[in-house]
Amino acid sequence: MSAEQQYLMLPGPTPVPASVLRALATPMVNHRGPEFKALLEEVTEGVKGVYKTRNQVVIFPAAGTGAMEAAVVNFISPGERVLAVSIGVFGDRFASIAERFGARVERLSFPWGQAADAEAVRERLQADRRHEIRAILVTHNETSTGVVNDIRAIRAAAADHPALFMVDAVSGLGAMDLQTDAWQLDVVVSGSQKAFMLPPGLAFVAVSSRAMEASRACTNPRYYWDLQSALNYLGKGQTPYTPALSLYYGLRESLRLIDAEGIDGVIARHARYRSMVRAGVKAMGLQLLASDEVASAALTAVVAPPGLGANRIRKALRDRFDVVVAGGQQALDDVIFRIGHLGYVRDLDLLAVLAALEMVLAGLGQEVKLGAGVTAAQRVLMNEEGR
Amino acid sequence: MSAEQQYLMLPGPTPVPASVLRALATPMVNHRGPEFKALLEEVTEGVKGVYKTRNQVVIFPAAGTGAMEAAVVNFISPGERVLAVSIGVFGDRFASIAERFGARVERLSFPWGQAADAEAVRERLQADRRHEIRAILVTHNETSTGVVNDIRAIRAAAADHPALFMVDAVSGLGAMDLQTDAWQLDVVVSGSQKAFMLPPGLAFVAVSSRAMEASRACTNPRYYWDLQSALNYLGKGQTPYTPALSLYYGLRESLRLIDAEGIDGVIARHARYRSMVRAGVKAMGLQLLASDEVASAALTAVVAPPGLGANRIRKALRDRFDVVVAGGQQALDDVIFRIGHLGYVRDLDLLAVLAALEMVLAGLGQEVKLGAGVTAAQRVLMNEEGR
Repeated sequence: MSAEQQYLMLPGPTPVPASVLRALATPMVNHRGPEFKALLEEVTEGVKGVYKTRNQVVIFPAAGTGAMEAAVVNFISPGERVLAVSIGVFGDRFASIAERFGARVERLSFPWGQAADAEAVRERLQADRRHEIRAILVTHNETSTGVVNDIRAIRAAAADHPALFMVDAVSGLGAMDLQTDAWQLDVVVSGSQKAFMLPPGLAFVAVSSRAMEASRACTNPRYYWDLQSALNYLGKGQTPYTPALSLYYGLRESLRLIDAEGIDGVIARHARYRSMVRAGVKAMGLQLLASDEVASAALTAVVAPPGLGANRIRKALRDRFDVVVAGGQQALDDVIFRIGHLGYVRDLDLLAVLAALEMVLAGLGQEVKLGAGVTAAQRVLMNEEGR
Repeated sequence: MSAEQQYLMLPGPTPVPASVLRALATPMVNHRGPEFKALLEEVTEGVKGVYKTRNQVVIFPAAGTGAMEAAVVNFISPGERVLAVSIGVFGDRFASIAERFGARVERLSFPWGQAADAEAVRERLQADRRHEIRAILVTHNETSTGVVNDIRAIRAAAADHPALFMVDAVSGLGAMDLQTDAWQLDVVVSGSQKAFMLPPGLAFVAVSSRAMEASRACTNPRYYWDLQSALNYLGKGQTPYTPALSLYYGLRESLRLIDAEGIDGVIARHARYRSMVRAGVKAMGLQLLASDEVASAALTAVVAPPGLGANRIRKALRDRFDVVVAGGQQALDDVIFRIGHLGYVRDLDLLAVLAALEMVLAGLGQEVKLGAGVTAAQRVLMNEEGR
């Protein structure tokens, strides 16, 4: 079967709705003209809605990692102390970028598969009586483990410590609640290829006025990622250099879809996916990496049964049923596989994928009752609908 | 009329062929899977063909300015001396990026509308007996003035000076000859929204092994733009972070179109556009900013008649005929307008645009013989075809 018919169950890139794909094919316009100005202003407002913010939002032509780099180089100067809270690969990446640009990074790491402990953050920040820590880096949804951090609690733990609170919400924004303004998040980065239901290539940065104030003193050099320059141009309906126009067209359409459903409806839908997939996988007798309390609504990390490598399961899913799931990263390679349920996914897709997983496990000699996982997920779905 | 029906005569974004627009709408695949590996390898080879190089080529999800920043941060350390040859806005931008990242930039600037003098470059480099200059920055096609530099002659003038030779070919590559290997160009950057006939959002960097060797000693911090990391991932058919997949699909299609025509056919076509537009504009009695010897094949900068602002002409072209041309930048604002003829343009489009310009000028009270410009361009076209 061709790649066009795959079940793409990744934590990004995620499936793109047909109307968004069609929007990508819109002809070009002048990026210094009135059509683009209207488009830029419309999508910027729409992205703010997803962020639940009135802060400024800048859109870069970049991958999500670019927005993480922008967060570092605009706000953290070489030699400054940074507290990097990490629960996996992407928490480590945020810390690594800060280190690369000269920050003195102190890592507060938690075991993979667990969430960050807000109390530990509180203790560390309370011990920082001289306020040497200038920024706190936290991951919203940790894509490598399928764990979501309680950003609200961690932000509350930071209390009135003056460090900038910076959140990597690349894979979590839109899939799980994140309230930029209500929770007082200074810098929140995200990307297009996750809950925004777009192809990769746009990166978003929401920034508080307090953070922009702090950026003036930041000595890290920046040109492409210069937020002040981007905001200056945004004020006249432009970007400092050529924007990724096609993806803006797609973004306009995907924001319309999100708006029609309502952002809280989108978040509820992802919560339902989480319940369905977890119930289904548990009913097959498989272990989940994350406990229910901290489980991501964007993806589910499944531990392969003893003696059966996760990559063998992935290969069978792909070869037999064109179901594409992600593998484990670094120490979790071949230990877990990750089912993405993020963005443009349908309930029945999840039932189909669970059915495929049952057949693959049975084919690999596991004791699995065919239909057990599907039925468990169906029950979740029917209960939800009964509400 | 809707924006979809515009004559988009800009030096970028340029019109995108329908088959490329359709390719953008291809569904997503796993960027860590076999389909993307094959795609990445195919388009990287294709881009090398346009560059006329066997050097390594890296594709970033970024605007062309990002590739310029990548050229700076991978090869130029803070405090190092750089010779920036500038003939306009984009030459200045390359110099500014190098300055922003700590280089001691010496500008060798030439009046706007003129090309760089290779002899002046030779003299400056010969005077640098201690080889303190570590990099030479040169613009191929200067988009702000419609002037093309003789890269071959300037490179020859640098002779055996060990400085890295770095070329901003964002708007020129594919429209005018550029021989990366034959001319021994160390670093050549380009972008998707010009002669590649794609939307903006991909940036290219071709890099010699000598330059990659030098990059190991470069102390500028880099993460997103790290070429060594990109090359390591490229070796296994991947990218360090999520690639802009849709634009890769488009690139595969646009490379097929370029391959069908042949890169030298594409370049000859652009040379014909230059001749047609210049002949047409001259026949209307207008002045051109650049002389014939240094005129760009990608765009033509036209000086507005005395007493008639260039922006008034632009507005009339747009309002009456949906012809979108670019204005002048900085000191040339309202002095010139720039007709892009780059990428997916047809001969008859140029005749139509010249006809519109005649009517607009007449409407604004200029003495213009209707049909004079069109006829002059027709003659060029017929002569070319007679060959």
